[in-house]
Amino acid sequence: MNAVLKTFSTEGDYKVADIKLADWGRKEIEIAEHEMPGLMAIRQKHAAARPLAGVRVTGSLHMTIQTAVLIETLKDIGADVRWASCNIFSTQDHAAAAIAASGTPVFAWKGETLEEYWDCTLDALTFTLPDGTLTGPQLVVDDGGDVTLLIHKGYELEQGDDSWVNSPSGSHEEQVIKNLLKRVAQERPGYWTRVVADWKGVSEETTTGVHRLYQLAEAGKLLVPAINVNDSVTKSKFDNLYGCRESLADGLKRALDVMLAGKVAVVCGYGDVGKGCADSLRAYGARVIVTEIDPICALQAAMEGYEVKTVEDTLGEADIYVTTTGNKDIIRVEHMTAMKDQAIVCNIGHFDNEIQVDALKALAGVQVVNIKPQVDKYVMPNGNAMFLLAEGRLVNLGCATGHPSFVMSNSFSNQTLAQIDLWANRETYQPKVYILPKKLDEEVARLHLEKIGVKLTRLTQEQADYLGVPVDGPFKPEHYRY
Amino acid sequence: MNAVLKTFSTEGDYKVADIKLADWGRKEIEIAEHEMPGLMAIRQKHAAARPLAGVRVTGSLHMTIQTAVLIETLKDIGADVRWASCNIFSTQDHAAAAIAASGTPVFAWKGETLEEYWDCTLDALTFTLPDGTLTGPQLVVDDGGDVTLLIHKGYELEQGDDSWVNSPSGSHEEQVIKNLLKRVAQERPGYWTRVVADWKGVSEETTTGVHRLYQLAEAGKLLVPAINVNDSVTKSKFDNLYGCRESLADGLKRALDVMLAGKVAVVCGYGDVGKGCADSLRAYGARVIVTEIDPICALQAAMEGYEVKTVEDTLGEADIYVTTTGNKDIIRVEHMTAMKDQAIVCNIGHFDNEIQVDALKALAGVQVVNIKPQVDKYVMPNGNAMFLLAEGRLVNLGCATGHPSFVMSNSFSNQTLAQIDLWANRETYQPKVYILPKKLDEEVARLHLEKIGVKLTRLTQEQADYLGVPVDGPFKPEHYRY
Amino acid sequence: MNAVLKTFSTEGDYKVADIKLADWGRKEIEIAEHEMPGLMAIRQKHAAARPLAGVRVTGSLHMTIQTAVLIETLKDIGADVRWASCNIFSTQDHAAAAIAASGTPVFAWKGETLEEYWDCTLDALTFTLPDGTLTGPQLVVDDGGDVTLLIHKGYELEQGDDSWVNSPSGSHEEQVIKNLLKRVAQERPGYWTRVVADWKGVSEETTTGVHRLYQLAEAGKLLVPAINVNDSVTKSKFDNLYGCRESLADGLKRALDVMLAGKVAVVCGYGDVGKGCADSLRAYGARVIVTEIDPICALQAAMEGYEVKTVEDTLGEADIYVTTTGNKDIIRVEHMTAMKDQAIVCNIGHFDNEIQVDALKALAGVQVVNIKPQVDKYVMPNGNAMFLLAEGRLVNLGCATGHPSFVMSNSFSNQTLAQIDLWANRETYQPKVYILPKKLDEEVARLHLEKIGVKLTRLTQEQADYLGVPVDGPFKPEHYRY
Amino acid sequence: MNAVLKTFSTEGDYKVADIKLADWGRKEIEIAEHEMPGLMAIRQKHAAARPLAGVRVTGSLHMTIQTAVLIETLKDIGADVRWASCNIFSTQDHAAAAIAASGTPVFAWKGETLEEYWDCTLDALTFTLPDGTLTGPQLVVDDGGDVTLLIHKGYELEQGDDSWVNSPSGSHEEQVIKNLLKRVAQERPGYWTRVVADWKGVSEETTTGVHRLYQLAEAGKLLVPAINVNDSVTKSKFDNLYGCRESLADGLKRALDVMLAGKVAVVCGYGDVGKGCADSLRAYGARVIVTEIDPICALQAAMEGYEVKTVEDTLGEADIYVTTTGNKDIIRVEHMTAMKDQAIVCNIGHFDNEIQVDALKALAGVQVVNIKPQVDKYVMPNGNAMFLLAEGRLVNLGCATGHPSFVMSNSFSNQTLAQIDLWANRETYQPKVYILPKKLDEEVARLHLEKIGVKLTRLTQEQADYLGVPVDGPFKPEHYRY
Repeated sequence: MNAVLKTFSTEGDYKVADIKLADWGRKEIEIAEHEMPGLMAIRQKHAAARPLAGVRVTGSLHMTIQTAVLIETLKDIGADVRWASCNIFSTQDHAAAAIAASGTPVFAWKGETLEEYWDCTLDALTFTLPDGTLTGPQLVVDDGGDVTLLIHKGYELEQGDDSWVNSPSGSHEEQVIKNLLKRVAQERPGYWTRVVADWKGVSEETTTGVHRLYQLAEAGKLLVPAINVNDSVTKSKFDNLYGCRESLADGLKRALDVMLAGKVAVVCGYGDVGKGCADSLRAYGARVIVTEIDPICALQAAMEGYEVKTVEDTLGEADIYVTTTGNKDIIRVEHMTAMKDQAIVCNIGHFDNEIQVDALKALAGVQVVNIKPQVDKYVMPNGNAMFLLAEGRLVNLGCATGHPSFVMSNSFSNQTLAQIDLWANRETYQPKVYILPKKLDEEVARLHLEKIGVKLTRLTQEQADYLGVPVDGPFKPEHYRY
Repeated sequence: MNAVLKTFSTEGDYKVADIKLADWGRKEIEIAEHEMPGLMAIRQKHAAARPLAGVRVTGSLHMTIQTAVLIETLKDIGADVRWASCNIFSTQDHAAAAIAASGTPVFAWKGETLEEYWDCTLDALTFTLPDGTLTGPQLVVDDGGDVTLLIHKGYELEQGDDSWVNSPSGSHEEQVIKNLLKRVAQERPGYWTRVVADWKGVSEETTTGVHRLYQLAEAGKLLVPAINVNDSVTKSKFDNLYGCRESLADGLKRALDVMLAGKVAVVCGYGDVGKGCADSLRAYGARVIVTEIDPICALQAAMEGYEVKTVEDTLGEADIYVTTTGNKDIIRVEHMTAMKDQAIVCNIGHFDNEIQVDALKALAGVQVVNIKPQVDKYVMPNGNAMFLLAEGRLVNLGCATGHPSFVMSNSFSNQTLAQIDLWANRETYQPKVYILPKKLDEEVARLHLEKIGVKLTRLTQEQADYLGVPVDGPFKPEHYRY
Repeated sequence: MNAVLKTFSTEGDYKVADIKLADWGRKEIEIAEHEMPGLMAIRQKHAAARPLAGVRVTGSLHMTIQTAVLIETLKDIGADVRWASCNIFSTQDHAAAAIAASGTPVFAWKGETLEEYWDCTLDALTFTLPDGTLTGPQLVVDDGGDVTLLIHKGYELEQGDDSWVNSPSGSHEEQVIKNLLKRVAQERPGYWTRVVADWKGVSEETTTGVHRLYQLAEAGKLLVPAINVNDSVTKSKFDNLYGCRESLADGLKRALDVMLAGKVAVVCGYGDVGKGCADSLRAYGARVIVTEIDPICALQAAMEGYEVKTVEDTLGEADIYVTTTGNKDIIRVEHMTAMKDQAIVCNIGHFDNEIQVDALKALAGVQVVNIKPQVDKYVMPNGNAMFLLAEGRLVNLGCATGHPSFVMSNSFSNQTLAQIDLWANRETYQPKVYILPKKLDEEVARLHLEKIGVKLTRLTQEQADYLGVPVDGPFKPEHYRY
Repeated sequence: MNAVLKTFSTEGDYKVADIKLADWGRKEIEIAEHEMPGLMAIRQKHAAARPLAGVRVTGSLHMTIQTAVLIETLKDIGADVRWASCNIFSTQDHAAAAIAASGTPVFAWKGETLEEYWDCTLDALTFTLPDGTLTGPQLVVDDGGDVTLLIHKGYELEQGDDSWVNSPSGSHEEQVIKNLLKRVAQERPGYWTRVVADWKGVSEETTTGVHRLYQLAEAGKLLVPAINVNDSVTKSKFDNLYGCRESLADGLKRALDVMLAGKVAVVCGYGDVGKGCADSLRAYGARVIVTEIDPICALQAAMEGYEVKTVEDTLGEADIYVTTTGNKDIIRVEHMTAMKDQAIVCNIGHFDNEIQVDALKALAGVQVVNIKPQVDKYVMPNGNAMFLLAEGRLVNLGCATGHPSFVMSNSFSNQTLAQIDLWANRETYQPKVYILPKKLDEEVARLHLEKIGVKLTRLTQEQADYLGVPVDGPFKPEHYRY
């Protein structure tokens, strides 16, 4: 459906769209470094000790300019890194090229097929020992949990449980994963068991991936210690909220140059991501309607002046739909067939199943016109047009360049501290889900203050005693919500 | 200093400013009931079972119209209630009159002296058994922890530890409390021990009071189970945030009719209260500067576009100062003497020690002109004027009428559910600090949605399974921050 | 209907509620002077020349603290002033008392009857010459045009045209005016002709009053030169917009302490006043719906994200109605009988006919409960309650204290400059409607910048030449809209 | 300096970057038509009458997708159109290709040199009569006044006044124009006199171009009637304000993906454009500082809570500078050398002389690194980097795609109505500057309401009489400011 064909070069141990973009990528990485003071401070602090010296790290995380700075931070503190993107549309090709050109194996380009995507994930997982043996990472940086899923499912299969790989698949992607596992089983017998033997931990970036980890842990199936990076305050209350506030409109604008003022926009879900999206759309002069399942979040939306109702009640009235829920089947085929002419539909949640794209494509009488990459016009059976962005995948990464560097510096500082922590405590941590201590959370924030000219007040000892906290923090109880 | 003299009538078992205000108070209570759907729903649900039937409850909480609805809710579900305000300036006299006229003992008027205030607290504590014996409450509704403090300190003294009551006092108020305890020791020997014997629990409203409770619990000195109502989401993220967003400007306007647009306002602290205050002031067109000790909150303020610096750096530039920290000595004498002419200084945190009012009054060369109740002009030694509102006590309650009914309905629904819970579990709860379960928190929100026209989306079973939550909630993990 | 009886004292040449409030009023006037730098600068500039020396000036303008500063500015530059309020509810009694106590005749108290109101207007008009002859003002400061109306109608009658005074009246107020004119005709024969002979001009404050003046001028009936102060940029784009943004919520809060967040508010009219009201309500978290007749203003509202529909379409959905149109019959009886229970209805336009209050009172089956002064609960035939504020008169002045000093300093600086201008050019001005020159408009703004710390950039001569404007302004063409 | 070479194809009577982009352009034009209801309504209304049948029209206006809809509207109502862009960076190449492919002569591509730009302007001016004679347009659609300038200067030269073309040039562009005029004088003797003979009028889009027209008219040098489209309310209060609110951030994001939250941004000028820019940046969480020369606009900025100071006072503090003034030398070399490291500088005013780009390039010790088209990094003598966007030209058009369709539909509806009006009144209009009547202004707004779901209220006859306006408008006096 996408009119632009993608090729990729694999001259070295990498697969990128065009290695000649490396110079451009490098210039933008240098710009980003100035906007990512947290990562740069961590580099400086650990330059001598190199706490990840020689540690094999696989990353599966949107291969953007910001991620490039993360990758080079991990390398600076010693890690041996291999990388894939965690979304078929989210790679910035010049970023990938710059990383490849610097000698780090990276397997990612914008516009992968699902088969290519999962192959890339396997490539990023596959380290080769000096003796030629294929092995896996010691640590994983995950975003959405695809690497974690692949290792767990591969290991399960090698443990003799083939029920999943042989079950019917609910989606095309599920089948792609099963096919890959079967192929690995043939080509690399015992591979996953070797991988698990060396694997010491995973740090996870997203609400969705963390949710999966808690489910695995509750079921007693989690194989390694995990750090929930998403729920660091300096991640979920920054990246999810402020990141989306910056990047949602960016995606909409680059996709369709649409006027937001005067439009009616429906934001499905009013968590941190939804809050950022609603705030941004309203600031542009859109009238925002929120949908929610949770009465607390719904009341928050109402207190901010948003109308709260169901998707059904907005059909024919709304111009723009954005899903932010982490749930599935939010915008369903019956919704899409009843929308106003020229409605715009997109998703900014991690997975693309928030919108029923497969069912839409299968709907009789639908015509699709590709306008440009990641922008498709669907002419519905009733003649109305609907614009679907990034094929239902993350619109800010598919149609724009994702969150800006400064906010990602917070998230990635947490990721880096989590990797260091996992390795340092590899002997003692259990296969559970951990959260970084508040002291580190506050430290991440602190590293970003100077860049934007913030001057903190310092407690006197007397005040600290009155509050019952140390002068230098941590300042808040664990249950504090910010 | 206050030019308006206050008198109070005590014809029955109450002390109020003017019982003739009861009719007016009743009319406003009826209006408030429509704005407090949570409390009204609780009345209806428990009308038959009357879960607090015959339970003696003492409340120490701003005696406003909204509190009147809380009091009558507690009575409706069976409680035997006595009430005092928790602040010398926060009583609405027509509310107190209406409550008194309805037969509930209440001891509160606007503009108490500190001596009167603590006497009222004791009055609210003092139940008389049919045989004439003086006893205390079985449950306490506390706001700031004054009742809890008094009982603990009284009990400590009766246990033989008189170190505190005989130590030098750091403030006038501290000495007032000590004097009261000594008097009770003479007049009612063994009284506090009897009180503690019957006391089954306390629910606490404020950040400050909760902080005290955790400190008591950590020190092993907490005498009863306590429920931290403040940290229900539907309290701290509503009352503290949206309540202050509504009531801060109200206090400023009623005090001084001042134009907020174009002014430079300093908000000290960027917790929930500070967030609400900053948001409100900015919406009026003020330029807001935030001060913070916590790097995370400071970064949040910066992400919202506020300048973050220290109080010292704003002197001479800022027109308005608001303290919201829960800490002490935020605005110090040396600050006040260096402020711009005509600066306005006020506090919206629970206690009045955020501003050094005692030290200000003691400063040589200061002249004070009372403009009207709760508004004083201080002419500083350098000739500059400074307006101090409500003598440094809560400006929204001292100069206006506190938070509006709808948001208090959330807080007070939590209070009521906490009281019911404490009594129901009185046999099993330990002397620890509890938080209400998320299910109840969501229920409180749910009770308020219909009134404002919110229509929730309902999960399908399939979606609920995908998320791993029940269809009817609770929907979020405990660490979720909203 | 109003439960609070008003009395007034007339020991001297004044009628005020309570002369003992003068001290309090004086203290607040002194505070206001610091917030009104424009007026204070004009005092200073003209202190020596006293351009209005001995000129008789009648003012009809809300008798507030801010107006007191205006009055004393006029006196400082030489005028002989008499004053009335222009609204039965808008007087601040302590302001009136302070002015009376200082020796300026003032006739105004909060809660006048319509008969009293028009008598006060006549009192303010009536100067006595040294020989005891009654005469009128040489200049008029008008707000809404009541003085101008009275003189024109009185003069018309003396000219022999008694058609109007003998025609049936459309409202009670109209009849009050006619009765007054008939009485004056008996008591003071030839009075209005004498008044007109000396009258040199009027400066008018409001959109409504200016509209009347243009109609008079177009009909060739305007008796004197008039200056349209309302359409100075520093009046209409400041007072109307920012003034209402500050004072609407103040009126609502003091009247009903209502939570605005989560409410649905309808703002009728999206001119400058409506823009300020809508902006304020939204900032509090209300969901605002706008009604408009003008497609340009309607499109502006839509671009700001407001839903635009008719009053009819909001019935049953909206909680709060505010009229801002300058038109009549905006909220009609059929609307009020179909509103949601507990709806709040108020007006912030100049006249009270935006809401059909007379018809409401006459409606069969309506019950009225006075809650407190300026707050009435109407129980409608269907049992729903509706709160009417300030009996349909300006809610910000009836229920609060009107606009804050700083914005009024802009408006009143224009008024003062207009008075000076009218007198200086009394020989040459024609009976037309003038607007102050842009240079003066910019000067008024300039006088207010320093107080709020604004630092202007100054054009170089080269830049000024490039733009084709003088280095010191005026900077914009006449049609510029700001 | 720009790394991407541009070529253009001239197979037919057009010059565009790549005619193969026509299909993509056409798809986007079709999308835009749905967002431009005003233009589509005008097409429909005038489809039969074709009021511009056979009229030669030259347009000089950013060759974007929206302009393509304007061009095809003019053609639909009969015009014979030739087009150029009015800025070297503002063309969207797929839009130009689609217009060229449809047979309309267009001369525009993104990234022209100044020589190419003025050649294109001449191409757009040059019509060929059936007998082969070269002639010019009968009507001009101008944006910034370049076509008007060229004709006036050419005519002046042919009238014998060669003082200007032989004077020293203040900029490179000025010399380019003079060279062109000299060449035309040689190649086409008497050409400009023929052009002027047939020329009936010009409609002008921008503040800047209108300013030039008023200066010409005042000097008695204006050759034809002109309509000031910029000052239609539905242009200046929409395009300038809401257009920039939508497109400034779009330009910044596409250029540098920069986080706006937490940054300090300086907006130079607080007219309609500046208001839109400041509003947008603040909504993203930037802290905005405004610079102004006009005390009224400065006071408006302060009332909205912006700090107002000079550029000099922000150096070292601010991260982003945006010029919006219409004046020159706003950001000077001495400013740029004193900025914070990594500062971003851009312009959204019509001409590029707001920033001293020429002087910057000439500065000793400056190094330039091109990051990507329209994004240059200047390394200053002190080692600090500064990013200059679009070489100082309009950042929203150079780095993004300009204003969105809906707002341009308002502006271009005014342009089209102005063209129709100029032609209809060509016999009676004088060489003066006209503004469209308010009735048409309201009509433009009305055409855009239905698309966004606005429902107008309609006056009753009685209300209209009370207001003294027709039931269907126009509703406001000429001096009304909206």
